[in-house]
Amino acid sequence: MPERIAVFDNDGTLWAEQPMYFQLLFAVDRVKALAPQHPEWASQEPFASLLKGNLKEALAGGEPAIMQIVMTTHAGMTTEEFDQIVRDWTSSAKHPKTGQLYTKMVYQPMLEVLTYLRANGFKTYIASGGGIDFMCVFSEEVYGIPPEQVIGSSGKAKFEMRDGTPLLMRLAEINFIDDKAGKPVGIHQHIGRRPIAAFGNSDGDLQMLQWTCSPPGPRFCLFVRHTDADR
Amino acid sequence: MPERIAVFDNDGTLWAEQPMYFQLLFAVDRVKALAPQHPEWASQEPFASLLKGNLKEALAGGEPAIMQIVMTTHAGMTTEEFDQIVRDWTSSAKHPKTGQLYTKMVYQPMLEVLTYLRANGFKTYIASGGGIDFMCVFSEEVYGIPPEQVIGSSGKAKFEMRDGTPLLMRLAEINFIDDKAGKPVGIHQHIGRRPIAAFGNSDGDLQMLQWTCSPPGPRFCLFVRHTDADR
Repeated sequence: MPERIAVFDNDGTLWAEQPMYFQLLFAVDRVKALAPQHPEWASQEPFASLLKGNLKEALAGGEPAIMQIVMTTHAGMTTEEFDQIVRDWTSSAKHPKTGQLYTKMVYQPMLEVLTYLRANGFKTYIASGGGIDFMCVFSEEVYGIPPEQVIGSSGKAKFEMRDGTPLLMRLAEINFIDDKAGKPVGIHQHIGRRPIAAFGNSDGDLQMLQWTCSPPGPRFCLFVRHTDADR
Repeated sequence: MPERIAVFDNDGTLWAEQPMYFQLLFAVDRVKALAPQHPEWASQEPFASLLKGNLKEALAGGEPAIMQIVMTTHAGMTTEEFDQIVRDWTSSAKHPKTGQLYTKMVYQPMLEVLTYLRANGFKTYIASGGGIDFMCVFSEEVYGIPPEQVIGSSGKAKFEMRDGTPLLMRLAEINFIDDKAGKPVGIHQHIGRRPIAAFGNSDGDLQMLQWTCSPPGPRFCLFVRHTDADR
């Protein structure tokens, strides 16, 4: 019998809200929190626009602008410090329209699928373009998926001894982008075998779905088209 | 209660035989198997010495020579083809002295520790300097550790469509070296939290042991000094 392993994209498939990414909101809030220590940001893009609340203008610089925001807010601290920052944010930040914690705004049909699969002996994984360390903080509480079953994008980290204490410093350098053709690679490196079920909702999931559902053996792939905005 | 996660180095801690590494023996046998397609190897190091059975001379080139042997024998095929090659080899190659399959030459006291920990609710992982895809093939059968609980060194891989079939090609490029200061980083990226127990046997395990056994909480680290050769 093939091993019962199922992988789920996280943006959209598991969150109810699209296309404003949860992790980008986190980064924006972090820029605001860090701004007092960076007076130069008042006149430096993409930070200047972000601080004025103009997200669209801030992201006009495309991928380099996004990378600058991500690296500024996700690197330069230890892994444990970052965990705590994410934990504090997810337990307090609320969606502007619903007033709910983001961690309560999960796409209910997918949670039911997760529960159903686990009740039938499946090991369930997240395979997301989002940051692995970001998701690990709340994956168990929100999806019932433990940190070791989260696959995602990552920055490099470096082992250091600081005053006799070993720690991992988060570096401002990309390690792996778990999106598009990267998803099957990330899944392979993390799980070491091909899943038999995959759930996605965007072009970034195409290769994961192709790879999971190629023969041999019984396989299942689902592509979700959200219509939440219409409801 | 801290999560019950334990990590084990694989060379030495889990294998009985040292310091001739299992995976290097695999690579040597692969060079011999591939030699008929590479007549140029007869006069090209490190292959020429390897083919004459002179391993010491072949490895005299140090890390570049080892990398050349590893890349030649571990890349240029799909992940599924590589799995099959490793499976064929581990089910037939025997130790020259004992006449046993290598997969039967496992360090028994460590197997007992693995069993004991699992019986007490621990999730057990391999954290090895060896190749992750190499170990994944036999980790479940040999150690009772499924592929998704294996952490190791890796090469890069690339998603491709070949005649309509999606596959992962193994590239001749290092992705990650899971040794020394790399071990805590590999464990963090794979598990997403710090283990509470670690077992090692060489200098390559030092940082993993330091990181695992730093406060807070109850923690256990074991460093094994083999004396098999004397028995």
